[in-house]
Amino acid sequence: MTKVDFNSDLGESYGHYIVGLDPLILKQVTSTNIACGFHAGDPKVMRNTVKLALSEGVAIGAHPGFQDLQGFGRRKIDMAPEDITVMVQYQVGALAAFTPDHRLHHVKAHGALYNLAAKNRVVADAVVAGIKAAAPDTIVYGLANSQLIEAAKEANMRYAQEVFADRNYQADGTLVPRTHDNAVITNPDLATQRALKMVQTQTLTAITGETVPLAVDSICVHGDNEEAVALTEKIKTTLAENGITITSEI
Amino acid sequence: MTKVDFNSDLGESYGHYIVGLDPLILKQVTSTNIACGFHAGDPKVMRNTVKLALSEGVAIGAHPGFQDLQGFGRRKIDMAPEDITVMVQYQVGALAAFTPDHRLHHVKAHGALYNLAAKNRVVADAVVAGIKAAAPDTIVYGLANSQLIEAAKEANMRYAQEVFADRNYQADGTLVPRTHDNAVITNPDLATQRALKMVQTQTLTAITGETVPLAVDSICVHGDNEEAVALTEKIKTTLAENGITITSEI
Amino acid sequence: MTKVDFNSDLGESYGHYIVGLDPLILKQVTSTNIACGFHAGDPKVMRNTVKLALSEGVAIGAHPGFQDLQGFGRRKIDMAPEDITVMVQYQVGALAAFTPDHRLHHVKAHGALYNLAAKNRVVADAVVAGIKAAAPDTIVYGLANSQLIEAAKEANMRYAQEVFADRNYQADGTLVPRTHDNAVITNPDLATQRALKMVQTQTLTAITGETVPLAVDSICVHGDNEEAVALTEKIKTTLAENGITITSEI
Amino acid sequence: MTKVDFNSDLGESYGHYIVGLDPLILKQVTSTNIACGFHAGDPKVMRNTVKLALSEGVAIGAHPGFQDLQGFGRRKIDMAPEDITVMVQYQVGALAAFTPDHRLHHVKAHGALYNLAAKNRVVADAVVAGIKAAAPDTIVYGLANSQLIEAAKEANMRYAQEVFADRNYQADGTLVPRTHDNAVITNPDLATQRALKMVQTQTLTAITGETVPLAVDSICVHGDNEEAVALTEKIKTTLAENGITITSEI
Repeated sequence: MTKVDFNSDLGESYGHYIVGLDPLILKQVTSTNIACGFHAGDPKVMRNTVKLALSEGVAIGAHPGFQDLQGFGRRKIDMAPEDITVMVQYQVGALAAFTPDHRLHHVKAHGALYNLAAKNRVVADAVVAGIKAAAPDTIVYGLANSQLIEAAKEANMRYAQEVFADRNYQADGTLVPRTHDNAVITNPDLATQRALKMVQTQTLTAITGETVPLAVDSICVHGDNEEAVALTEKIKTTLAENGITITSEI
Repeated sequence: MTKVDFNSDLGESYGHYIVGLDPLILKQVTSTNIACGFHAGDPKVMRNTVKLALSEGVAIGAHPGFQDLQGFGRRKIDMAPEDITVMVQYQVGALAAFTPDHRLHHVKAHGALYNLAAKNRVVADAVVAGIKAAAPDTIVYGLANSQLIEAAKEANMRYAQEVFADRNYQADGTLVPRTHDNAVITNPDLATQRALKMVQTQTLTAITGETVPLAVDSICVHGDNEEAVALTEKIKTTLAENGITITSEI
Repeated sequence: MTKVDFNSDLGESYGHYIVGLDPLILKQVTSTNIACGFHAGDPKVMRNTVKLALSEGVAIGAHPGFQDLQGFGRRKIDMAPEDITVMVQYQVGALAAFTPDHRLHHVKAHGALYNLAAKNRVVADAVVAGIKAAAPDTIVYGLANSQLIEAAKEANMRYAQEVFADRNYQADGTLVPRTHDNAVITNPDLATQRALKMVQTQTLTAITGETVPLAVDSICVHGDNEEAVALTEKIKTTLAENGITITSEI
Repeated sequence: MTKVDFNSDLGESYGHYIVGLDPLILKQVTSTNIACGFHAGDPKVMRNTVKLALSEGVAIGAHPGFQDLQGFGRRKIDMAPEDITVMVQYQVGALAAFTPDHRLHHVKAHGALYNLAAKNRVVADAVVAGIKAAAPDTIVYGLANSQLIEAAKEANMRYAQEVFADRNYQADGTLVPRTHDNAVITNPDLATQRALKMVQTQTLTAITGETVPLAVDSICVHGDNEEAVALTEKIKTTLAENGITITSEI
């Protein structure tokens, strides 16, 4: 049986500042990555998002990032590996405090930390060390074929490889950077067919034409605009029609 | 067998800023309250303080406070009760991430939050709710005879009543405020005899002469100056000579 | 010639978080209070808001608040008066850095600081001291008849008394607290007539019927929703039809 | 007449955390760079440090850094140039609020921002733009021969080139990184002779033997330990004995 998880970054409001279509997205995805108060989120938002996810049966993960609310965790901060480890450990523990059994389904790094950990093995190891220290049984979510996945393997952690339906990839399996014109696939039909093919064949076609093998455990979907919601619906329907089970039990 | 715990607030350094005689104090006390990054402490300081406490066999507790590094958690912030609950819950979870089994011996509120929770039952209930949500089996430390102890009782949480050897008390069992001249007992012999009497009789003599009954589960000692270290040593020796067991197993 | 200023709190976005109808409101008001990065706003938002205000010919003021982004400056923090003074001084200087001549038309405290300074003379003096130290020639905006206005007078600072068209007042000239049912006037016609009467007679009718004399230098209007924009338009039109000049030169 | 300025980074305490030998150093230096609350310092510390500097006749400068108290401004944050500009502008304005005439003698970037601006022209231009916007008449302090000095020249700003008496330099005029064994000159006599030669000849000898021409407007001295204080005293005495005037009027 072919199966795949749908995950989304949620709980990104902060105090007076409300963002995201969380209630809507939580009806679509099977797992969610909840901000932990460093790049977004605050304790009340964390509690409320966990509650809502529970009520929708969505698997709960922590979404740790750099401590940079102003930059929304998208700016790299030059931190020593051990500082990254404890920063991740802290945030994972904080979010776990809001789940009923203080356990988490998974942990996925956010923004600049996610990107760094995908490419830089030292950072990847630091992130995985923090996750393992705080939640040894959890699943490490990471970009398919990335250094973070390698780090999780070596640390004997469970892991899930994630892909983006609406992004183009390079021949080495990495994403075409957002600074390039063709980074994003804006045609919903194309993105949907691409997602289906990735799940069915566990490969993707790079922007330069090569076939790149990759494991597809989870598809990351956006939660901040209506188009993203519609695209997710379209992909889910198409996958289901093709006999693919959508579940967080990966 | 009469027994009592000694606790101290530690892990109050932050980044480049180093304060406290933590290694010294951890050789004296049986339990420690570790700052959780809101009023003091950062993830590395938390990890290091937990490690040091473990190596000295000291029981580890979280020390949540208001999110006010500049005011060191000593300034009251007017927060809604539910905001206090999640703020405490977050910090307790964050510290728990650094202990080997992700459990805590106890939780003690810090500074302005401690004082508010001692007098204001709504705040006390909010603090206890946060502790219970994050660590239902832990011990709630609170000022002896305070509203926080009442709140812990009603929530069916374990609790420990703490006293200060070097502070004068009022007839209603509350501390003489620090703004008063006679708030602090500066004579080490007097403070020592007072501590001994409190533990032996489970009463204290108020500044106005009344005998006030109180439970003495733990004695709070300071960790930021050499005199405090010497006083703690003196009290511990005197208590031991009088057959009192010093232990965190209270 | 009767004249009055219209002011609004703007520049309240922060990083990734965008709030407020600033471009719209800046076409309506004659002065604006710009958040200074403590309760809202960040350096880029400050620069952009100043720029936009300049291009619309709107007088620029600083809007200092408590350092509490999570609470949006609406939670009282127990600070020593001298700490309030330097906190205000800092924020006023920071905003002044973004105006062409590094001068400000006015300064208005935000949220909990505004409310405290309206009622508590010690806080009012502390706020005025900070404004005076950073910008001695600026205008202190404050609630009409409040302690802040008294403090500004005693400090020989220029001041402007502000009123709210859509709020009910008590017999002592203070606002009916938002916790009361009748705090806000939701009928636009009523609010408009009220504003006109206040400006024409320099008095208002309290919720309990008394006539309260008050100076009306500025009317504060909201900038976060479409109804507020419509109400402001209505009031401005009515005032203009009645020969009242709308200007920040008060 | 040969002359040189002595500058030091001060005002680096924060709330409860007290660091630095500020009162002592302010008796030695002719100019001081005061932290602005982003990497260190708070409004009260800023006010107090300005006051003390004034009473000692020391010229006052702003010392803006990255917003990273935990990393003390020593960790690079990947910020867009315009974000760096407004960040610097904000901090310069904030400190200026505490001087009697709201003017500053100079501005010197701190830590990671200083190092980046020394090597990276885009960052250098961004820093200078922020300084110029907030304080067009002030002096830009920068590492001698650095990109920041070039940026200041091009912006038609006044500038001062600074050197370190106790650091070794590379043949290209940049500092030997602190990660190298021979980065620091620990022998006070050597450091003193080096400082004298630099001021007298406006050249230095690189670690690899080359003579490097450089302007020496200011010597940066440390303010956090007793050895630094003693070294500064030694250098000052030696320079004075050799007829060099020590002054901030450079």
